[in-house]
Amino acid sequence: MDDALDTIEPVGPVTRRLWDATAATRARIDELEFLRTLASGTLAPEAFVRYLQQDTLYLADYRRALAMLAARADDPAASGLWAASVAEAVAEEGVLHAALLADERLAPHVETEPEASLVTRAYASSLLAAAAYEPYPVGVAAVLPCYWVYAEVGTRLAAQAAGVGAHPYATWAAAYGDPAFVDVARRAVAELERVGAGCDAPLLARVERAFADATRFEELFWASAAAGESWSR
Amino acid sequence: MDDALDTIEPVGPVTRRLWDATAATRARIDELEFLRTLASGTLAPEAFVRYLQQDTLYLADYRRALAMLAARADDPAASGLWAASVAEAVAEEGVLHAALLADERLAPHVETEPEASLVTRAYASSLLAAAAYEPYPVGVAAVLPCYWVYAEVGTRLAAQAAGVGAHPYATWAAAYGDPAFVDVARRAVAELERVGAGCDAPLLARVERAFADATRFEELFWASAAAGESWSR
Amino acid sequence: MDDALDTIEPVGPVTRRLWDATAATRARIDELEFLRTLASGTLAPEAFVRYLQQDTLYLADYRRALAMLAARADDPAASGLWAASVAEAVAEEGVLHAALLADERLAPHVETEPEASLVTRAYASSLLAAAAYEPYPVGVAAVLPCYWVYAEVGTRLAAQAAGVGAHPYATWAAAYGDPAFVDVARRAVAELERVGAGCDAPLLARVERAFADATRFEELFWASAAAGESWSR
Amino acid sequence: MDDALDTIEPVGPVTRRLWDATAATRARIDELEFLRTLASGTLAPEAFVRYLQQDTLYLADYRRALAMLAARADDPAASGLWAASVAEAVAEEGVLHAALLADERLAPHVETEPEASLVTRAYASSLLAAAAYEPYPVGVAAVLPCYWVYAEVGTRLAAQAAGVGAHPYATWAAAYGDPAFVDVARRAVAELERVGAGCDAPLLARVERAFADATRFEELFWASAAAGESWSR
Repeated sequence: MDDALDTIEPVGPVTRRLWDATAATRARIDELEFLRTLASGTLAPEAFVRYLQQDTLYLADYRRALAMLAARADDPAASGLWAASVAEAVAEEGVLHAALLADERLAPHVETEPEASLVTRAYASSLLAAAAYEPYPVGVAAVLPCYWVYAEVGTRLAAQAAGVGAHPYATWAAAYGDPAFVDVARRAVAELERVGAGCDAPLLARVERAFADATRFEELFWASAAAGESWSR
Repeated sequence: MDDALDTIEPVGPVTRRLWDATAATRARIDELEFLRTLASGTLAPEAFVRYLQQDTLYLADYRRALAMLAARADDPAASGLWAASVAEAVAEEGVLHAALLADERLAPHVETEPEASLVTRAYASSLLAAAAYEPYPVGVAAVLPCYWVYAEVGTRLAAQAAGVGAHPYATWAAAYGDPAFVDVARRAVAELERVGAGCDAPLLARVERAFADATRFEELFWASAAAGESWSR
Repeated sequence: MDDALDTIEPVGPVTRRLWDATAATRARIDELEFLRTLASGTLAPEAFVRYLQQDTLYLADYRRALAMLAARADDPAASGLWAASVAEAVAEEGVLHAALLADERLAPHVETEPEASLVTRAYASSLLAAAAYEPYPVGVAAVLPCYWVYAEVGTRLAAQAAGVGAHPYATWAAAYGDPAFVDVARRAVAELERVGAGCDAPLLARVERAFADATRFEELFWASAAAGESWSR
Repeated sequence: MDDALDTIEPVGPVTRRLWDATAATRARIDELEFLRTLASGTLAPEAFVRYLQQDTLYLADYRRALAMLAARADDPAASGLWAASVAEAVAEEGVLHAALLADERLAPHVETEPEASLVTRAYASSLLAAAAYEPYPVGVAAVLPCYWVYAEVGTRLAAQAAGVGAHPYATWAAAYGDPAFVDVARRAVAELERVGAGCDAPLLARVERAFADATRFEELFWASAAAGESWSR
């Protein structure tokens, strides 16, 4: 890890434990072919489009899971945090799609009615389910890797890409290092630390498991984007 | 009704029918002692505080119902609309409370741990229940009067209060005419018209009923604020 | 309290605390005019019908709140308990309505499309809301008085009515002492004790409050049935 | 298909369309290696155990999705149908596990803490999500293949297995033809036909898609049981 980067640290024992328990998965993410080629700019445009379209499908469910957390949060500040992320995700869905179509190298590869892959379905649905059925801290743990792990990976990716002259995805790569998103991710980490403090041991075990599963899904999501696996009926 | 005011019109047959069906209730609201004395500035400070504290309790549930609609909305723009209102309500909760304590005529009447009255409980819980259990259009109809009827009443109230020299609640009253809120209310009306168009007759009947019940609750809410009814165990 | 009756005791510190904290409310329930005249058989048929119709409306929401708890319960046995109560409530809704129409003293007072009263709305919606938005133990605490307090009141009522020769509501009154329901109520008490054990102090305070509020609603429900208060738009 | 079998027919245009649209997927299911070897009794015990353990994990989520439908159903009979299935699923979870441990050929292969596979996660979570976030008819369509397709496959499987002398899984295979389950499946089909009738075209398209996706998941579930794919972090 590059210490000069704007990393997000655990803020207490709960998030420390979650972060450490997922070290192996996060190390594998760092080595993913998809992310390495995205950083170096050698990734094939069709693979990048495939990933972006799966990401857009994922976002549509992600914002609904976040809205459910906003509904379940007792604390007004937490409600406000999730609601702001919903509004942000809605905006991003639109921007992503428009940007794809506006990029002449990417537009030809855009599918009109893309289907969510098995991994996208499993990841997105598991967040929706956790937010609606599980205790609130478990729901928070489930959505957290998409803030925290994503922000870490994104910050590093943006830094690496910035070092590549004439990077074909320069504009996209720069967006991954958005400091505003890093700030929001920090608040999400703090929220899990806050509510994790009130959990007893069995509930904490479920919190940890939800975080580990979602981190594993982050890995599978990027890995499957490269593989190009698709859903068929 | 003063035609010079910035009123919110129905935008199609669904919202037209709902608006017309609640004319009697809305006419009664216009005549409420509480609202008349609030407009003229003769309302007792303790009654105003009581109302504001019930309103704050109501808002805490209202934002959760809106977040649930954001979770259930299929359309991204609708999700974004409700999420923005959640963030707005969270902000307002804080502002209301701080403003109360900062006003030296009102602060002495503020209760430290106010209990929601029977009407506040019934109104707030019925919105929470509609948003979580009923079809989405019924949930939208349930929360709509707190946008639409409230914006209409508020606009009129602000205009009347503005005509009273040295109005004791001038700052508060002015806030009721917030054009930004009127704009959001218009978008909420449009959302019900949009989803109402796809409802069959039995579902439309439930939509109408939810809107009429919530409008009646708007009336009871203001009426009970004046009455000073409280909850005891 | 008659010690010979089949009462339901708290099963641990959590339910003991909840039971003791609601002693005053429960004592007031025992003195309610409505319940005394129902026990003695002197209650007016129209008041009894009014109560039964409100009870039927309440049951329709109650079963949905129980189903939500079945959805949120992690433990299979708890899920099964709530699901069995849903099925039971559905059956009872039908039986109640049919029995009303079959009783020639009561049938003339039956309203075709009864409206839920303010109290019925407030009580039923608050259970729906607690089950869907609050942590599971709070939802359980909210629905519990309708098992526990109701079973206690019902058992006593059935015993008192049985002592009145030619009691006009003999069949109805006997149903209140149903031992099967008392058994289910005991399992619901045990479920709250089980999940209450894992709650920290702030959550326990919310559990206690939900139980106290619902107990107060049991009182208001019976009291308002006598008062004949109705909902109008 | 064997006409002598107790098959479940569509009961109207909605379910007819869904059934016909999934003909190809259902034909592939009939040819699955896993099901053919289960019918003939040549399936390896460890593959059978793997399947049963995934099925048990699936059931735990399935019952929560059904309970959510019971909460969202407006019609009491529908609520009762789903609630009865919840109770049934809870009972089956226990029976399955006990039966596995009691069978000496199977017990050695039982994993103590089995993890849901990617397919099990995706299928189960998508049902939970549909039941909680989507319009009720979409939720019903999502859970229906596990009644309908499963009952069809099970009936055929039981009939085939019955023709094999000394079938190693005779008791298990017989359970697949349970006429009580076929009857419940018929009621679930009728419920979708009932609520489908009130859907407009865009909603019907979502209903169809949910049914097709869940049917595809039925295929993947059996196929992946044979493959022995597992989840790792």
